Amino acid sequence: MVKLIRTTNELISCRDQEKERIGFVPTMGNLHAGHISLLEKALRDNDVVYFSIFVNPKQFGPSDDFQKYPRTLEDDLELIQKCNSNFEGKKIVVFAPEKPQEVFPLNYSQTVAVPTFNNIVEGRFRLNHFDGVATVVYRLFEIVKPHNAYFGLKDYQQFLVIRQMVKDLAMPIEIIGMPIIRETTGLALSSRNQYLSTEQKQEALNLYQSLLKISNFIDGKKAKLAMAKKEINTILLDAKWNYLEMRDAETMSEDLTKSSRITLVAVYQLGSTRLLDNLQLEVK
Amino acid sequence: MVKLIRTTNELISCRDQEKERIGFVPTMGNLHAGHISLLEKALRDNDVVYFSIFVNPKQFGPSDDFQKYPRTLEDDLELIQKCNSNFEGKKIVVFAPEKPQEVFPLNYSQTVAVPTFNNIVEGRFRLNHFDGVATVVYRLFEIVKPHNAYFGLKDYQQFLVIRQMVKDLAMPIEIIGMPIIRETTGLALSSRNQYLSTEQKQEALNLYQSLLKISNFIDGKKAKLAMAKKEINTILLDAKWNYLEMRDAETMSEDLTKSSRITLVAVYQLGSTRLLDNLQLEVK
Repeated sequence: MVKLIRTTNELISCRDQEKERIGFVPTMGNLHAGHISLLEKALRDNDVVYFSIFVNPKQFGPSDDFQKYPRTLEDDLELIQKCNSNFEGKKIVVFAPEKPQEVFPLNYSQTVAVPTFNNIVEGRFRLNHFDGVATVVYRLFEIVKPHNAYFGLKDYQQFLVIRQMVKDLAMPIEIIGMPIIRETTGLALSSRNQYLSTEQKQEALNLYQSLLKISNFIDGKKAKLAMAKKEINTILLDAKWNYLEMRDAETMSEDLTKSSRITLVAVYQLGSTRLLDNLQLEVK
Repeated sequence: MVKLIRTTNELISCRDQEKERIGFVPTMGNLHAGHISLLEKALRDNDVVYFSIFVNPKQFGPSDDFQKYPRTLEDDLELIQKCNSNFEGKKIVVFAPEKPQEVFPLNYSQTVAVPTFNNIVEGRFRLNHFDGVATVVYRLFEIVKPHNAYFGLKDYQQFLVIRQMVKDLAMPIEIIGMPIIRETTGLALSSRNQYLSTEQKQEALNLYQSLLKISNFIDGKKAKLAMAKKEINTILLDAKWNYLEMRDAETMSEDLTKSSRITLVAVYQLGSTRLLDNLQLEVK
């Protein structure tokens, strides 16, 4: 392609656009439409997309499902390939380290701590989980050096952790949070859904429906938050909730007096499967 | 394209190669195979090539041929297009400012001075010519921000000027000098050759043949330089030479005692047409 330019302003703006944009989608694999929506957004926004598939040992607790976390590289590559075929000329680099030492060399001893978020809400249930997440994402950011990185908002607290980390460490990376992808029933897509029995899957609909119910109840009005709290307490009588909380959507503080956006964050547990979901609301 | 990577080292080197490379070929247009050889090299080395066509007023003296310098944009674009067709997927941006003010805004008062080279050899014949060259190239470098820039070695002193400027100003740009392209007769290609009559074109062969003769005479041996000087003085009896000199190839100093590379630089004048040529020699 030959492009003719006659003015300096046009030239300068043409030159500005020349910079390659590197997008990054870090995942633990076992991909579903949620991951693919991140990949599609990254392909739209960037020249090249790095996509990592790495089950990060540091973010699993001792009793967690690290060993049994599904590893399905071939299926994952197929989904990625299929997605790529809709973006002609774009390149995807899949980074699927064979060994954890590729990401954490022997004696790697750095931890990126995110004290603000580590011990609250989901953090109370998963000791040092978010430090483990921040540490692996920091490490991958160091290796990949992306301009943009994409995270699903299903793990809302994780999104806040990463955003905070990048801000604290002044990393020149844009963190983009992408909407939750749901089944038509409303159930948020998750690798862990496959552990659910047919019955549990039916029961799981409670999770999003409860969030919607509270959200409709509040109706964008801050004045209704106190009453919503009562409603939540009623909902929480069902023992399957690990938690269902209203928090400030930016700080995750319990104090909502100055909030203009709040988040409803919840975990609903069926058997040993913990299902996460959340919803953000503007309130006036 | 989907590329699978399993090790961090491979990923890091893949990421390193992602950086877009911008090549730049600044010209005054009226293109010939010499210019196209620069473009080809730039296309091979880079992801995108910026190619400027700009007859720079600052490098013409008051009695020089600025007004009559040939402007042949359509033919030039055709040659560029043809060259591009051999480099599928590569992009060429042609910057052909319509007005000098695009490059030098009104009241632009900066001059990049290159005192080392401005007043010697070709500089004695063209007052402030090299300052004019350095100033326009500096300005274009500022606008285009290339990683690599390509210059023909036919204008050998110009090449040294640009290389010195980039070094002095610590510009992060690689300056690549490309060999002279010659007709089969040995005559170096130049936009100014078209001013020559058939007779003059025959006479012009003297230029390169004299350089070759001296070069063969020296035969890579520093010991022969003094005798070569005598030979040159004989050749210079022909009044058509503006000059024919041996200089250090890096510094253009007349002192060759420490030189390991020398340059033979010459201008042979036919009518009002000054023909430049040069040759670099290793000497032991």
